[in-house]
Amino acid sequence: MKVRLKDIAKIANVSVASVSIVLNDPDTTRISEARKKEILAIADELNYVPNTAARSLVTNRSKIIGAIIPDLENQFFSSFAKSIEEHCRKHGYVVMMMNTHENVENDAQIIDFLHSRGVDGMIISLSGGSYTNNEAIINSLNKLTIPYVLADRTMDNFEANAVVFNNKQGEYLATKHLIDQGHTKIGYISTKKHSMTGHFRHLGYEKALRKAGIEINEDYISYGKFDYETGYQAGESLFKTDVTAIACANDLIAFGLIRRAREMGISVPEDISLVGFDNLYINDIMEKGLTSIDQNTNGMGQASVKILMDAINGNTRLKKVVLEPTLKIRQSVRKIND
Amino acid sequence: MKVRLKDIAKIANVSVASVSIVLNDPDTTRISEARKKEILAIADELNYVPNTAARSLVTNRSKIIGAIIPDLENQFFSSFAKSIEEHCRKHGYVVMMMNTHENVENDAQIIDFLHSRGVDGMIISLSGGSYTNNEAIINSLNKLTIPYVLADRTMDNFEANAVVFNNKQGEYLATKHLIDQGHTKIGYISTKKHSMTGHFRHLGYEKALRKAGIEINEDYISYGKFDYETGYQAGESLFKTDVTAIACANDLIAFGLIRRAREMGISVPEDISLVGFDNLYINDIMEKGLTSIDQNTNGMGQASVKILMDAINGNTRLKKVVLEPTLKIRQSVRKIND
Repeated sequence: MKVRLKDIAKIANVSVASVSIVLNDPDTTRISEARKKEILAIADELNYVPNTAARSLVTNRSKIIGAIIPDLENQFFSSFAKSIEEHCRKHGYVVMMMNTHENVENDAQIIDFLHSRGVDGMIISLSGGSYTNNEAIINSLNKLTIPYVLADRTMDNFEANAVVFNNKQGEYLATKHLIDQGHTKIGYISTKKHSMTGHFRHLGYEKALRKAGIEINEDYISYGKFDYETGYQAGESLFKTDVTAIACANDLIAFGLIRRAREMGISVPEDISLVGFDNLYINDIMEKGLTSIDQNTNGMGQASVKILMDAINGNTRLKKVVLEPTLKIRQSVRKIND
Repeated sequence: MKVRLKDIAKIANVSVASVSIVLNDPDTTRISEARKKEILAIADELNYVPNTAARSLVTNRSKIIGAIIPDLENQFFSSFAKSIEEHCRKHGYVVMMMNTHENVENDAQIIDFLHSRGVDGMIISLSGGSYTNNEAIINSLNKLTIPYVLADRTMDNFEANAVVFNNKQGEYLATKHLIDQGHTKIGYISTKKHSMTGHFRHLGYEKALRKAGIEINEDYISYGKFDYETGYQAGESLFKTDVTAIACANDLIAFGLIRRAREMGISVPEDISLVGFDNLYINDIMEKGLTSIDQNTNGMGQASVKILMDAINGNTRLKKVVLEPTLKIRQSVRKIND
């Protein structure tokens, strides 16, 4: 049976108000020390659990941040999630996390849900399809009465606090690195342009080719999701073409491709050069680590939390931060000479 | 400004009760279709957000499961978390997740916190130190008025629903594999016995040595956390001994050790054989994948959710499921002949 304030009040022979004051603020000076101790002891004795749901209705501050993460199994996001938590904790906030599984159908619903649970603010990484399929999401965001920050993924023509990486520049650096090593037949594996990340990385790939005077060949491009399976499947068609190098729009895709290459007896980088994107820590462990684009996930977490805290504390000016990725060279690319 | 039921009632010219009925159950037959449509349209117009915190006080069912995860960056746990979500979703529940960062100081606090947020049940993976330092945790668990399942990590002399792997058998299989390949000087890297997982894996390591008549040498053993850094640091001392093989209590430890070995010019498996534990997917990508112990995280997720749902539906009998790990052989172990 649930213990209520009046149960404690009755046993302590004080008013419900006194119990409420002490349990909400054990440091209060409005109640005598002796009485405080007695009330707290009785509450403990009865296994009283403060009902935060009820309390947050009164105080209007939950000290909880809601975080929406697209795929916790992708280390880029789990590392970002960890960073959010660490920085929120420093500000006295805990994080309630929910995963959309990169399914755009879940985004709006989870935004509504966290809002209805009374969080004080949200850090939202939208799922892949949100760049083009976002009517429901925008509808939900517009209903929010709390501050929020879009992290890693935003939408066109929509004003919000945001922290993103320069995805176009990142994929440009990756593709240019392949060109610099003498490659001209360069494949690409990514999501279709319905994902904001996919869209801008694709622009970066095209920009690097265009600047080098290399024509874009659609046969060299394969589309899917930002996952291992996509890379694994793409090998099937791309390895039949004459590409000598492939830019993968994230490391998971590259890992899937490496796996498929091994099964087909194709060597990296001897037969095919690869670059990834995200610079997952696992690359430092592999004998032939993947050359990749590093994105500072902790920087994104820190910036997101800072903007959110400012907003919670009343700063209403929207802020946008763009973080620059960098090229991290390893052993997965070989130089070719014509 | 927050929209309230009475605002909607006033505009629709109906009672607050009617508004409440419709918003809580849009399929209700107690209100005419025409009136229902009108109420829903006005609620939408005013951007009404249902206050689930308030509602859950009334219905006493939140349809939320709280999940406590020790380290979301460890793929073993992120994969488990994803599985919990998938199975909860099938039962119409959403998951609110919180991360303890493998810090035992956080466990009790987060259990209290999720309880106070009105979740209907919890799936709890305690942090590493909980096996011995658990007074506060047990105190918090005993106060819970909702069902819960301990997953992956339990405590001695404490009765609860639980789903665990047979850790002793897993490390036994790993160590025995090294012995079967001719190794007798076998190092071990793990956490101290304050972690339940560490405790039982250690027993498995010792059992395999004992059965083979090999004496336990404390110089061959290094302690730390279940992380990359621990393996990296352990290389320093273990590579100075004459061990020919090392059993690592999880894959992250092994990955850190591999990194250190590479820096020191030590080859796996030529100079040193390694086995891990957890069988992370990344092993299939590496050129010389790690021989490891596979634990079916989806099986743990499915069993945990099933037990929890049964308990929420009134089954009060405690259940314990023990899952058996299996050896997955790859290229990180070489056979030696004396």
